[in-house]
Amino acid sequence: MSELRHDVVTGRRVIVAPARAARPQEFLPPTERGGGACPFCEGHEQETPPEIIAQRLPNSQANAGGWRVRVVPNKFPALTPQGADGPRGGPLDRRAHCYGVHELIIESPRHLTLTTQMDTAAVADVLLTYRDRLRALADDGRLAFAQVFKNVGAAAGASIAHLHSQIMATDFVPAEVQAELELGRRYFDRYNRCVSCDLLEREREQAERLVAESENFTAFAPFASRSAYECWILPNRHGSDYAALSDAAAGELADVLLGILHPVEHELPLAAYNLLVRTAPLRQPPLGRFHWRIEVVPRLASWAGFELGTGIFVNAVAPEQAAKKLQSSKFPKVC
Amino acid sequence: MSELRHDVVTGRRVIVAPARAARPQEFLPPTERGGGACPFCEGHEQETPPEIIAQRLPNSQANAGGWRVRVVPNKFPALTPQGADGPRGGPLDRRAHCYGVHELIIESPRHLTLTTQMDTAAVADVLLTYRDRLRALADDGRLAFAQVFKNVGAAAGASIAHLHSQIMATDFVPAEVQAELELGRRYFDRYNRCVSCDLLEREREQAERLVAESENFTAFAPFASRSAYECWILPNRHGSDYAALSDAAAGELADVLLGILHPVEHELPLAAYNLLVRTAPLRQPPLGRFHWRIEVVPRLASWAGFELGTGIFVNAVAPEQAAKKLQSSKFPKVC
Repeated sequence: MSELRHDVVTGRRVIVAPARAARPQEFLPPTERGGGACPFCEGHEQETPPEIIAQRLPNSQANAGGWRVRVVPNKFPALTPQGADGPRGGPLDRRAHCYGVHELIIESPRHLTLTTQMDTAAVADVLLTYRDRLRALADDGRLAFAQVFKNVGAAAGASIAHLHSQIMATDFVPAEVQAELELGRRYFDRYNRCVSCDLLEREREQAERLVAESENFTAFAPFASRSAYECWILPNRHGSDYAALSDAAAGELADVLLGILHPVEHELPLAAYNLLVRTAPLRQPPLGRFHWRIEVVPRLASWAGFELGTGIFVNAVAPEQAAKKLQSSKFPKVC
Repeated sequence: MSELRHDVVTGRRVIVAPARAARPQEFLPPTERGGGACPFCEGHEQETPPEIIAQRLPNSQANAGGWRVRVVPNKFPALTPQGADGPRGGPLDRRAHCYGVHELIIESPRHLTLTTQMDTAAVADVLLTYRDRLRALADDGRLAFAQVFKNVGAAAGASIAHLHSQIMATDFVPAEVQAELELGRRYFDRYNRCVSCDLLEREREQAERLVAESENFTAFAPFASRSAYECWILPNRHGSDYAALSDAAAGELADVLLGILHPVEHELPLAAYNLLVRTAPLRQPPLGRFHWRIEVVPRLASWAGFELGTGIFVNAVAPEQAAKKLQSSKFPKVC
């Protein structure tokens, strides 16, 4: 069973999850598995735990073929809803079996490994599945926070190549998330404005880090990008909760996302990346001080000793240069 | 020129260092370069910037052969002492050209790629070079903090295989380091004890995470290890400053370090790791609330979307199991 442990010297929190050790390491050795052997491909539904929900063709059966997007519990979970208890131990070994959920979103019945192999409608289906799961998890009163993420490529932490996203939800709000909410509150108290709304206005005016724009979304390389070619997508209209995404907006968001991912997947030497949805904690009222976003973080260089020791990232590509390269992609751009 | 940038939304600090982009990427494609082509091998001294200091044979010339350990400025620095200025920009784009130093410590004239290829005396020479450089950097009144680190293997961020360590020194104390000092201060205020002294006592009593012990040093897998097989080495006697290491203690510390690195380099499937020296900021008086340490952080799994989004690490191997495996190494152990 997973244990949330607290380090008394550094203040770090770590999830010790022995169940993760049994994961298949598809990338070791780094051979591409054929579709036939992949547990996420259509026809292999019995190799995953029973599905939580799926977007299915009419008259198809649960846990059989005929789906477009399929959500299942992670077979090797970092967090589980079983056996949760309160904190134990003294100051030197504070720990708890925390209550949590770890789900997989299988993005396609076919053995696709790049997001740009999907069309707008298929990506929109995935984005709406994120929304639907966030809404469903908010109904579980024991959960406080959910992180939606996607790892593409071994260097980004993926162990299976077939496109999938994950949601991990916890019964507490992580300190780093709390710190960002607090920063937003302080900015709001001082300027009576959302910091991300101000940032969007500045990025659109200066235009030196813009990557893509649509009617309702703006994508840019953030001023303090922690990795080369990092990109954020924000909704132009203020909103703190990704789960409020409308069906109509999902297609537009999918187009902007594909506009970023095309150069990331096709023009960068190594296409590993993480995608993160940063949204407000569960069951919050609309927050004026927080603005949801999607982050795409390419993993071209490994974070090394300096980053581990200091928490300060070293990025060799200025965001202004990164934006130029991302914009110059031959892919039909949204902006 | 490098720029230290502050992210207004997350509070993150990032060093944007375009000079790093020109680095040779020895590991891409992943072929092992022969010794002859390596800029760090003896006989290739002209391929690095002129040396700052070296441990040399009598009568050998600077920047020629005849050295055991050689310290040079990093040719592709993340930080430089040139062009530093004060903070600029508004709240949305706070930045500075920070004053800093980025040095390389080339650990052997031969093309060694594993620390365990060195004997105790050679490792002790490297550990004493860390000490000597920390002492020298403390004499530069503009520097506030120095991070000594070593990346071994591409997955740990190394771009050249020939064994080398690095020092990056900054004109400010990173927030994560300050936070740890503050945690130590609070523990000291409450218990009138150093938290790491208490931790050492507990680890030696419980003995379930101990990996190696000598007269003056203890190595253990930390209770909240952020990675599988992480190991810390602490001096048994309280001390806040690594730069106070004595010549006599360096050999003993080298033996304990080799006792950890043997199983890491030879019994784990991928031997990439980071080594970090966590010591007090420069020019501090002895601090009762801070205890220096060396951290060895193996990089077996890539940190992925959850870690990036929340700052919480997921570790699939319990430190108690890790300690058993590290102890069971056939290498002659110190403890």
